[in-house]
Amino acid sequence: MAQGLRSFWGWGLEDKFMDRVGRENLANVFASLFGSASTNSRPLDVRDAPKVKDIEIADPRLIPAKSLKEFISRSPHERLSHSRGKSFIDVVRSFHGEFSDVPDLVAFPRTEPELMSIIDWCYSSNVAIVTYGGGSSVVGGVNCPSIENYQAVLSLDTTCLDKVLEVDSVSRSALIQAGVLGPALESQLKQFNLTMRHYPQSFEFSTLGGWIATKSGGHYATNQTRIDDFTQSLRVVTPAGIVETSRFPSSGAGPDQNGFFLGSEGIYGIITQAWMRLQDRPQFKDTVGVKFSNFGSAVDACRIISQSGLYPTNCRLLDAVESFQSAGVTNGNSLLIVGFESAHCPVDNDMKAALEICSDHGGIYERDSNKDDSKKANDSLTESDSWKSTFTRAPYLRDAIISIGHIAETFETSVTWDKFSEFHSQIMQRVRSALDETCGTGVVSCRFTHLYPDGPAPYYTVVAPSSHEDQIHHWSHIKDVVSSAIIELGGTITHHHAVGKDHVKWYHQEIPKMLLDSIERLKELYDPKSLLNPGVLLGSEGH
Amino acid sequence: MAQGLRSFWGWGLEDKFMDRVGRENLANVFASLFGSASTNSRPLDVRDAPKVKDIEIADPRLIPAKSLKEFISRSPHERLSHSRGKSFIDVVRSFHGEFSDVPDLVAFPRTEPELMSIIDWCYSSNVAIVTYGGGSSVVGGVNCPSIENYQAVLSLDTTCLDKVLEVDSVSRSALIQAGVLGPALESQLKQFNLTMRHYPQSFEFSTLGGWIATKSGGHYATNQTRIDDFTQSLRVVTPAGIVETSRFPSSGAGPDQNGFFLGSEGIYGIITQAWMRLQDRPQFKDTVGVKFSNFGSAVDACRIISQSGLYPTNCRLLDAVESFQSAGVTNGNSLLIVGFESAHCPVDNDMKAALEICSDHGGIYERDSNKDDSKKANDSLTESDSWKSTFTRAPYLRDAIISIGHIAETFETSVTWDKFSEFHSQIMQRVRSALDETCGTGVVSCRFTHLYPDGPAPYYTVVAPSSHEDQIHHWSHIKDVVSSAIIELGGTITHHHAVGKDHVKWYHQEIPKMLLDSIERLKELYDPKSLLNPGVLLGSEGH
Repeated sequence: MAQGLRSFWGWGLEDKFMDRVGRENLANVFASLFGSASTNSRPLDVRDAPKVKDIEIADPRLIPAKSLKEFISRSPHERLSHSRGKSFIDVVRSFHGEFSDVPDLVAFPRTEPELMSIIDWCYSSNVAIVTYGGGSSVVGGVNCPSIENYQAVLSLDTTCLDKVLEVDSVSRSALIQAGVLGPALESQLKQFNLTMRHYPQSFEFSTLGGWIATKSGGHYATNQTRIDDFTQSLRVVTPAGIVETSRFPSSGAGPDQNGFFLGSEGIYGIITQAWMRLQDRPQFKDTVGVKFSNFGSAVDACRIISQSGLYPTNCRLLDAVESFQSAGVTNGNSLLIVGFESAHCPVDNDMKAALEICSDHGGIYERDSNKDDSKKANDSLTESDSWKSTFTRAPYLRDAIISIGHIAETFETSVTWDKFSEFHSQIMQRVRSALDETCGTGVVSCRFTHLYPDGPAPYYTVVAPSSHEDQIHHWSHIKDVVSSAIIELGGTITHHHAVGKDHVKWYHQEIPKMLLDSIERLKELYDPKSLLNPGVLLGSEGH
Repeated sequence: MAQGLRSFWGWGLEDKFMDRVGRENLANVFASLFGSASTNSRPLDVRDAPKVKDIEIADPRLIPAKSLKEFISRSPHERLSHSRGKSFIDVVRSFHGEFSDVPDLVAFPRTEPELMSIIDWCYSSNVAIVTYGGGSSVVGGVNCPSIENYQAVLSLDTTCLDKVLEVDSVSRSALIQAGVLGPALESQLKQFNLTMRHYPQSFEFSTLGGWIATKSGGHYATNQTRIDDFTQSLRVVTPAGIVETSRFPSSGAGPDQNGFFLGSEGIYGIITQAWMRLQDRPQFKDTVGVKFSNFGSAVDACRIISQSGLYPTNCRLLDAVESFQSAGVTNGNSLLIVGFESAHCPVDNDMKAALEICSDHGGIYERDSNKDDSKKANDSLTESDSWKSTFTRAPYLRDAIISIGHIAETFETSVTWDKFSEFHSQIMQRVRSALDETCGTGVVSCRFTHLYPDGPAPYYTVVAPSSHEDQIHHWSHIKDVVSSAIIELGGTITHHHAVGKDHVKWYHQEIPKMLLDSIERLKELYDPKSLLNPGVLLGSEGH
């Protein structure tokens, strides 16, 4: 488990929220960067984090059955913490102490029978259940539904189910309880010299079950990377009964069993454990930063690498703005971070081949030609390291930006290579006009998080000046514009943030109508009273 | 299209059926090998192939609407050809002229509207539809249902939908009609310098749509290989409407769209076209045959290679019997055929690393140390080549064996590495006792077709003496024994032959009951009158 108290309103640990001095400096930076063009007339408005005691919260409307009380919390801190996820709008609302819908109860089942008894009680009492793992959803995936539709709402926190139950070192797989958070999972596997090597940005505050339910995008930039590829079998408790899929390396028998639950975002049931495919710990690693003066050439290099069969572990392209902001590249170049790792074989030849592709496309990199120590720092490595550290700190920085009344949020997609150039130019253009319309100015940047042979997964970050009063409607407008553009231009509404409630409108444009009907049919089978994660994926809340 | 007339009763082309002299020689070989131990008192009973004109076949019970006549055949040759697939029992029955259930009509729609008009007509007239691609199913997947349950039965042959419609060379993908057979697909892609590189043993006589509907296992022995991995999007005509999935490199939005149809074996609708991910044509190739005196050590080498991240294209392990029969290895060794290919980079380093793993496990191989010509034959290469040729000829050989009254059939599975050793020893033991009980003797052999980091896909071949009278019940007994053993010992009933009708009993033991219910719910949605592929996957025929 993470050390320290979890923030009830923002990302991660309470004491990692930037101090006031830091945030005042940040506000000044925003003022210098955007001051004159911003529509915000009050650029310096640094506010402090809310406190639980200042937030009014009604008593739980239902008292749980005696047998359940032991693992059910009614504490305001837990109820507020579990009321929503960590999207920009979630955090803004929480920061301002706006908690309209709060779960009445938070359950922490320690065993599957306890979890089943909660479902039974909720089913008998018309209590909605929102499954909550690490709570890191940025798409409304764990947000409390309108409480008036139910006798009560219960947040079902799975994080007490946090053990690695069995390790099969021969098949390199393990049976793992789904409520385990990333760091605890890795520390339990370490003693077996194994690793999941699945590091979403939310790693510290997300669970295995959450990764599976949302088809999490993983550590590897190429080849098999999504949690789907590493899920051998899973066990799901649904109101209609338990489903345990078969544990095979692969099967040609009917539709993929795990596929019924991968990406189902908790609307059918609660994943309690899974057999996962693991990795040996890497022994050979190399990372090189390659600079490109032309973003288009860097994109071409990425495409050729993605189709080369080289499978770099890392192949993240940062455009000029991201290279500057996240990796300290000051000459307007784009930075491609290319990394290889292997538990078994040296990676030098693969790296050499990938760097040749980069050179062919005008990429420039520096390597110590006499490199005899893989830890020896070089210019490129420093930039990659800098990016990595920025990556994990980003959500904390976003909370600081929220506290000074400005905007920092991301959106992401994937699109085939043939469409990318036009897609990207249109997206950049439309975000910029939306920024001009709302905030007066702002910055949008792009990086590739994952590469497939048939297309990249571009990830966009928007930073803009706003105000505490306008943050939400400014961002909502931008999000509307870009989401509609993504669908129109042939991208998916989400490559790895999931659908939740926030993407429902566009998801329903993306998915064929009959497949949505299919999901509804399965929902009726597994959750006939429609009490699980109301509003998620299907959009309709209540009955 | 394949050159020559398709056999109406056996595999492939009519004129490739072994001539009488060859089959007489084969019968003598069987007699020498098995004569004394066989329960068959009449070891030499070579019979000739049936002729269409000798088979009684009732007139079609329904005359199609006028507008459909143009692309609907009532010819006895087509109706008999389309009455079943190519499992051992299918071919034995057909060889003996036993055709109980024969489709009344065979439709060859040339466009999607024609296909839709057939479905409409069938739906209005209570006509069952069996979708038929190349007809190579070995699990009863295209077998005519009991005709008395329907006004008529129509076999819907998709092979006129055989064009590559659009090629996107940048994203390396193409929109392809689903009725195209393997060779025609590859020849159309060749002009774009692209390839699917998907070569099931049925390659010549199976279609893209069939591969998708049955989750075909592909060319690559490791890493991404199943047709699932190469399916970008697909279009399915169902009685309830058309579903066209979204074309993305990858998406985190809800359950995998293609997953609803991959492996659905035609029970929801007919796949008419798909966007498929393609490959560049390989420029670098190397194959080495490695011999192991100990099968268990070869298995260990396979496991380590499968977990190494090396991703050989080929990594097929033949046990001593298969090495002898298929690759001419006479010293009782197992043969591991290791191959690498790449369109972009030399494969020497990867090969070297894989061979080192083999050496570590006692593998012996010969390479010309001065190899300067990749085409230069060496001992090992010859064995691999020999195996390849055996691979494509195997189904013809099986038909010849059927014609002399004996048994040749295969079964396959996948199982995790931790279970493999016990699994394999039990399977071999139980097949041998089943052979003793039925045929008195026989041979069972094993190879690995695909390797996953968490387990192999073992493929077993059974050859045994029998008689024309006993072939079916002998094999049925053996198949029953091994199928039950596979489930009991933790394997899947099929790694890549699919479920069809023949595996239904065991599939229903393998799949969780609620997932079977799920498939039934979806069946009701897409095919409410239950007219598509009756009996396949779900097992129940009729209404």
